[in-house]
Amino acid sequence: MSKVTCDMAMSLDGFVAGLNQRLDQPFGDGVGDVLHQWMFEEPEAHKEVIEAITAAGAYVMGRNMFSPGRGAWDLDWTGWWGEEPPYHGPVFVLTHHEREPVVKRGGTTFTFVTDGLDAAMSRAREAAGGRDIAIAGGAATVNQCLAAGLIDELRVHVAPVVLGAGERLFDGVGRLTLEPLAVSGTGLVTHLTYRVVR
Amino acid sequence: MSKVTCDMAMSLDGFVAGLNQRLDQPFGDGVGDVLHQWMFEEPEAHKEVIEAITAAGAYVMGRNMFSPGRGAWDLDWTGWWGEEPPYHGPVFVLTHHEREPVVKRGGTTFTFVTDGLDAAMSRAREAAGGRDIAIAGGAATVNQCLAAGLIDELRVHVAPVVLGAGERLFDGVGRLTLEPLAVSGTGLVTHLTYRVVR
Repeated sequence: MSKVTCDMAMSLDGFVAGLNQRLDQPFGDGVGDVLHQWMFEEPEAHKEVIEAITAAGAYVMGRNMFSPGRGAWDLDWTGWWGEEPPYHGPVFVLTHHEREPVVKRGGTTFTFVTDGLDAAMSRAREAAGGRDIAIAGGAATVNQCLAAGLIDELRVHVAPVVLGAGERLFDGVGRLTLEPLAVSGTGLVTHLTYRVVR
Repeated sequence: MSKVTCDMAMSLDGFVAGLNQRLDQPFGDGVGDVLHQWMFEEPEAHKEVIEAITAAGAYVMGRNMFSPGRGAWDLDWTGWWGEEPPYHGPVFVLTHHEREPVVKRGGTTFTFVTDGLDAAMSRAREAAGGRDIAIAGGAATVNQCLAAGLIDELRVHVAPVVLGAGERLFDGVGRLTLEPLAVSGTGLVTHLTYRVVR
């Protein structure tokens, strides 16, 4: 059976994005690439971690992760992922607005699901064919999945920064018991992998 | 010159204590010993980490850390640390209420400082004689010290739990840049050591 994974880059004080996320500041005010610097500056050092993020058989993401900000959602906008997104597989985007699937190069197809998280998970499970399903963000979608007990393995990539404001991972999730599976890191990030205990 | 250190046990969502801290529930509602379980259940595995917590030459702590809850503060109450507290050195307690020092066995003396954090730090620096100064909690005092740029080395002990409510480390601190110095752990805790970058 598919395992459900989730990778999130987080500040030490629990923020995964700043306030006012928008197209020209996708991670919001004052965040820039500080949470993801390790990916861009040390790709070799984090090769396995980075590859694992896009190793799933299917993905579920929130509408803001496909295209941030209120103004960005129209029929001409096909997301900020470029011509060849890193997923190379089916991505199910949670939204209230129906639209045709967006097919990209390299096997990534964004399919828009308007009947809720459970429906998206079912479609992802079917599409994954026994491979893992990854919850691809953003925070609201991940928190909804955590609260619903849908995530098996949570991989938190802690950037060495305290942000003080923004969008929090775990907001409204309630209490969770975790089991540490692995820990590693460099000067730019600490990778913490947990099993979510039911 | 003395280095200023701080050890805090924290949930993955940033809480260091629950709500309603009081004498019979010193870590507040719903927390119990989940944040400190590693200390009690695996003392040998964390020997160096535990010894480092009380290796300073002097300590500064908040009034709630000396005795939690509003009702506990009276002249007969000498803190919850027992006859031989783990500090074995001078501890300066921030408070608005003057009182005589409390001398315990093993070299621990609680001295009450009513003229603010800077005064307490000066007295600790003098008492430490070049050895480290440790900020011994609780969250409000640590956050005040972080906001004032007083802490050089922050050691966060992350328990594998999401609490969802309580008192947050980093609340009101604003933005901090950190440098990871070390990472280790077991199934009960992940130790993250950071240098606070000025």
